[in-house]
Amino acid sequence: METKLQELKQRLSVVNDLYAAGAVLGWDQQTYMPPGGAAARGRQLATLGRLAHEQFTDSAVGKLLDDLQSYGESLPYESDDASLLREVRRSYERAVNIPPAFMAQFLAHQAAAFDVWARARPDNDFASVQPYLETTLEMSRQAANYFPGYQHIADPLINWSDYGMSAATVRALFAELRSQLVPLVQAITSGEPADDSCLHQHYPEGQQLAFGLMMAQRYGYDLNRGRQDKTHHPFMTKFAHGDVRITTRVKENDLSEALFSTLHETGHALYELGIAEELDGTPLSGGTSAGVHESQSRLWENLVGRSRLCWEHFYPQLQAAFPSQLGAVPLDTFYRAINKVSPSLIRTDADEVTYNLHVMIRFDFELDLLEGKLAVRDLPEAWRARYKADLGVAPPDDRDGVLQDVHWYGGLIGGAFQGYTLGNIMSAQFFAAANQAHPEIASETARGEFGTLRTWLTQNIYRHGSKFTAAEVVEKATGGPLSIQPYMHYLRTKYSELYGL
Amino acid sequence: METKLQELKQRLSVVNDLYAAGAVLGWDQQTYMPPGGAAARGRQLATLGRLAHEQFTDSAVGKLLDDLQSYGESLPYESDDASLLREVRRSYERAVNIPPAFMAQFLAHQAAAFDVWARARPDNDFASVQPYLETTLEMSRQAANYFPGYQHIADPLINWSDYGMSAATVRALFAELRSQLVPLVQAITSGEPADDSCLHQHYPEGQQLAFGLMMAQRYGYDLNRGRQDKTHHPFMTKFAHGDVRITTRVKENDLSEALFSTLHETGHALYELGIAEELDGTPLSGGTSAGVHESQSRLWENLVGRSRLCWEHFYPQLQAAFPSQLGAVPLDTFYRAINKVSPSLIRTDADEVTYNLHVMIRFDFELDLLEGKLAVRDLPEAWRARYKADLGVAPPDDRDGVLQDVHWYGGLIGGAFQGYTLGNIMSAQFFAAANQAHPEIASETARGEFGTLRTWLTQNIYRHGSKFTAAEVVEKATGGPLSIQPYMHYLRTKYSELYGL
Repeated sequence: METKLQELKQRLSVVNDLYAAGAVLGWDQQTYMPPGGAAARGRQLATLGRLAHEQFTDSAVGKLLDDLQSYGESLPYESDDASLLREVRRSYERAVNIPPAFMAQFLAHQAAAFDVWARARPDNDFASVQPYLETTLEMSRQAANYFPGYQHIADPLINWSDYGMSAATVRALFAELRSQLVPLVQAITSGEPADDSCLHQHYPEGQQLAFGLMMAQRYGYDLNRGRQDKTHHPFMTKFAHGDVRITTRVKENDLSEALFSTLHETGHALYELGIAEELDGTPLSGGTSAGVHESQSRLWENLVGRSRLCWEHFYPQLQAAFPSQLGAVPLDTFYRAINKVSPSLIRTDADEVTYNLHVMIRFDFELDLLEGKLAVRDLPEAWRARYKADLGVAPPDDRDGVLQDVHWYGGLIGGAFQGYTLGNIMSAQFFAAANQAHPEIASETARGEFGTLRTWLTQNIYRHGSKFTAAEVVEKATGGPLSIQPYMHYLRTKYSELYGL
Repeated sequence: METKLQELKQRLSVVNDLYAAGAVLGWDQQTYMPPGGAAARGRQLATLGRLAHEQFTDSAVGKLLDDLQSYGESLPYESDDASLLREVRRSYERAVNIPPAFMAQFLAHQAAAFDVWARARPDNDFASVQPYLETTLEMSRQAANYFPGYQHIADPLINWSDYGMSAATVRALFAELRSQLVPLVQAITSGEPADDSCLHQHYPEGQQLAFGLMMAQRYGYDLNRGRQDKTHHPFMTKFAHGDVRITTRVKENDLSEALFSTLHETGHALYELGIAEELDGTPLSGGTSAGVHESQSRLWENLVGRSRLCWEHFYPQLQAAFPSQLGAVPLDTFYRAINKVSPSLIRTDADEVTYNLHVMIRFDFELDLLEGKLAVRDLPEAWRARYKADLGVAPPDDRDGVLQDVHWYGGLIGGAFQGYTLGNIMSAQFFAAANQAHPEIASETARGEFGTLRTWLTQNIYRHGSKFTAAEVVEKATGGPLSIQPYMHYLRTKYSELYGL
């Protein structure tokens, strides 16, 4: 059995190397590649992806998994090898259930749809992308149907990014959250809006990048194992345990853009950097779900990075970096500015209170579309109506409406969005558990120190990689199941104080 | 046959994509990779290389080549398809003749030898690397012996980088060149040495990089299809027809370092960028030999970049970029400084006249070592003696002697160096032919325009990629076989004028 396990690991290591190579090519594509490289880069990435898929779905892998099944079950559940066999069995079945011909067709369609969308969005031209989106919907349904036995057709798709969740569980969770969020948003927005004009002065790019990276390093981001570059859309990418990179984008008239995207991506990076080195190069060497990943980006961006405690330490340094812009701005004004709540049209620009309402709109539409309750052609109008109802604002055009997010146009419909709100919910639950175990985290934060918090997160979440499901990680780390209570408690406490509710 | 040809091309395209992906990973490794990424990067590169080799040496490829053999011979010799089948047949046989187990062992040995050398060089410690070099010599002989029927054991190794050349032909060519070079070097060095102190002032990095890149663009290097970054050792690398990158290194106390390395790598890049787009992604989409490649880097670095004509145009701009350093330095002083001839210890720092003597020493030692006439343990002493005899200078230690070049320590012994001097010889032969066809090249150069020269090179050399052998390219482009006469004529004319010989 040990020999077979070694052979399996050897095969998986090749797959991992191919995906890592693809990640390097993808990073380069978005950071430094000259325009002329685009066409060949698409072909190279497709070749790497296809070879990785071929290597992974080789029948020899299935045979090894079968042979090792009972051996895996005989090992302690928490052991690396048992976890590896569980996780690989899941992803292998996911990979082999989808016929390669369908997969190739779907990938080609996604690439074409993305191209059309990239032109359609600036042109505010939903009509041109509508037939592509209709095909995407059909193919998303087909993809789900390769996994029969579901309760809801979205379930297989939700499982790909947030294993263990279903349309029913997410729906219930979101309904409860919504019922508590809406009154909070109403209470906040009925008062005086925060003044964030201090953030909208001229902030030179170089100093912004330096300050953000300084904070990332104080969080624990190690430049021996990472680096930051500029891209159109910020992201985190991992090539290995020792090479986890982040990117950001800068607006010189908006201090919050680069700063909080850097702290957000740093959160993703700390998760990946904290995974046990023994898991490097294996299928367990990544975060366990979209939700848990997002919980870490949001924890470091919002619960730490938009806290008063954190800025008690860093604000004097920020003032020193930008004396003419912030020298005369009190901490309290800055703190209110970075926590301004105001219903808006664009998800990625939303504050942390209204953000989840954006996500829920998209999640509901995904279910409606998959169920056939909503037709693609009716989506723009439905979008406007729902934004008006939920957020009190209606997009003047589709560019800032249904065309704003890449997810459906470059991927599939179903499972694309719920992870963002699951992450927000988890972020507060993890943060509360960490603070309960280590009340000194608050005073450390006020000194710009994060070692205790990071160590707790590493011990309880990061080091496990994908050994456990999101639900298992939540249970292990917090002693209970996923709950919205810590999140609502965090929002109510913070925003009651901020807005004098 | 068309179907089989398509299948072959499809398989070769996968191999090409894997090599291109490896090239991206290699570029990143030397430009931006954080130190923590090193171990995994080595593994990822090895996986890509192994898969590319497996895909290429698949017996299906051999079968297709066999089936297409007579079809290829029936096509016009100059057609893309006939050339593809000739070139792939050659590289396929090279790839399959070497047993995979030996190849893996040799690659592992080379990596280990490189590591030992990287520490041994700064420590001036030849003893530690000697046993590794002895193994490299043994394995180089073994590699050659997989290609029986040679005249000289170095022939198969020379053929890998400079197909069509042999120990005998290179030896004869080098003997002739040497007999004419040595008196020229003696004549030059018996006079007053040039004063290059103007190059050794403080030149800030940013301005150096900007100036070099400006000149590269004037040469025709298109930043839509390339970019420049900094590395420890400058190089050119190609990912696709539309993505050919160069790197450089800067010394703030030596203006010539970054400037001429940029022009050198630009020459390599112009070759790759000029290859016909139809050949992109095929095995013909690269330069045809080490010698022809070097002829282009040296042509643009030296015959153009160290010419008085070129600096008649650019020197006023260089003075404007560095007014305090060069404002009072006349063009003639600068021109003499960048063409200073002086026997030295380090090949990569050598002027264009003595450079070839460095190469010949290494070429002769490779033959002696392979023949068993020289033992590895006697190499340091032989090196000192030969430098004293040929260049009149003897290295005080092995660091600046036998340990200076990576080639033997990270590769094999045999075929590693002759391409440099073949390139010098060809550079002048090509340049003379271009100027004979287009006498206006001189006046264009003096205006900082290079379109006619670049177009001639593209038409006669670049566009063919690897369709023809080096000898065929020389014959086609210049109307005659490889000859040292244009090169010696160039050196004599230029340096007689410079040194009043």
